Amino acid sequence: MLKIADELAKDSSVPAPVVNSATSADISSTPTALPTECPYQLSDEKVVYTGRWLSTKQVKFRTQSGNEGVWQFSNRTTRPEKSVVDGVDVLAVLKKSGKRYFILVRQWRIPMNGWCLEFPAGLIDENETVEEAALRELREETGYSAKLENIIHKTNGIQGLDPGLTSDSLQFVLIEVDGDAPENATPQQKLDHTEAIDVILVECDKAFEYLKSVENSIHIEAMVYSFVLGHQFSAKFSGR
Amino acid sequence: MLKIADELAKDSSVPAPVVNSATSADISSTPTALPTECPYQLSDEKVVYTGRWLSTKQVKFRTQSGNEGVWQFSNRTTRPEKSVVDGVDVLAVLKKSGKRYFILVRQWRIPMNGWCLEFPAGLIDENETVEEAALRELREETGYSAKLENIIHKTNGIQGLDPGLTSDSLQFVLIEVDGDAPENATPQQKLDHTEAIDVILVECDKAFEYLKSVENSIHIEAMVYSFVLGHQFSAKFSGR
Repeated sequence: MLKIADELAKDSSVPAPVVNSATSADISSTPTALPTECPYQLSDEKVVYTGRWLSTKQVKFRTQSGNEGVWQFSNRTTRPEKSVVDGVDVLAVLKKSGKRYFILVRQWRIPMNGWCLEFPAGLIDENETVEEAALRELREETGYSAKLENIIHKTNGIQGLDPGLTSDSLQFVLIEVDGDAPENATPQQKLDHTEAIDVILVECDKAFEYLKSVENSIHIEAMVYSFVLGHQFSAKFSGR
Repeated sequence: MLKIADELAKDSSVPAPVVNSATSADISSTPTALPTECPYQLSDEKVVYTGRWLSTKQVKFRTQSGNEGVWQFSNRTTRPEKSVVDGVDVLAVLKKSGKRYFILVRQWRIPMNGWCLEFPAGLIDENETVEEAALRELREETGYSAKLENIIHKTNGIQGLDPGLTSDSLQFVLIEVDGDAPENATPQQKLDHTEAIDVILVECDKAFEYLKSVENSIHIEAMVYSFVLGHQFSAKFSGR
């Protein structure tokens, strides 16, 4: 399923990753080919619980060297048949009066037993593209409107949220929202009748300081924190 | 539990967030106080499955306006008593021969039924600090050594991985690894007997192009992708 080495060999414009295997740690620009098949022999998969929203499974696994174990995980039961992912996360930047804000939401999460700071997000509906779901969730959860042409980037493939525990997955849609447009003068949320969501705007260049100031008072979603860390330390990563 | 407004009022050096409530969408630098109590009335919590690694629960909830529903979620059963989070994710930057690389790992994930590209990470052991767990996991999963003084940043609080589905949580530890140090000349992994992990080094400034080139061949963990998006679009977020 994975062909990093092959994939990259096809297209010389793509930067080659450096693969360190356990036995060879030389850094070179020629990636080592990695095995593509599943390294486990799986058996006895059992659904141990099925609910309206998720099902829990257990499977036995055996490594190539003969070690055995059991894996337990919980998957959503709601993914539309035609969709490769369960949901979408919206990385939205609001441009308003010359300033830039990340649009975040605060929401009580029962599994976390507390308030969480997250990206606007949601599950993909039947017969909906990821882009459509992103624009809809942004509008419903925050009141802000954007159009397809405001989408700066969309990821592809399957981004797992917690790959050791669940198949729950999403794609990211990065949207620039025009806060000076008339339709965004007085944004009005359209929440489901069980949702309680507050919109929190954070100036992009103050986002790291903001997260540090609230990290002990609200549960900051891992994706939000890693995104802001990527932004904050970008110059350092570039050696600047 | 949350006191964004109070928290910020205490320290005037902290940037104030802008809170848009559903009824007021004015942007101002004075945050609106948000309610802190749980907006749901919870009842009938039941453990519907308990396994060695996770337990699945179901709880009824009722909103303040009287709407009712059921929430199902799965939590890890392995969090040490003294730890506020389940695990740690290591954002490691390798500096070697004048270049900078993100240290990522490739791992087969049974819940995802495929190879995943992730940060080095792991569960926190009994009587271990988050920093110690980060250095240990980096060493075990990638072979690279670092010391406490190489830690550039550590987050606090509870970062939920998939807050609508699980309480599974972590903190991030950002580490600069000296790839030119003698102890990192020939990094050797020390994997658990059931782990199969490959180390993948990606030049920081080519990480976005790399992720785009492999996103359909490997499942890129959401946190990895959002981190790289934060890095890649940093100048745009800053209005540069």
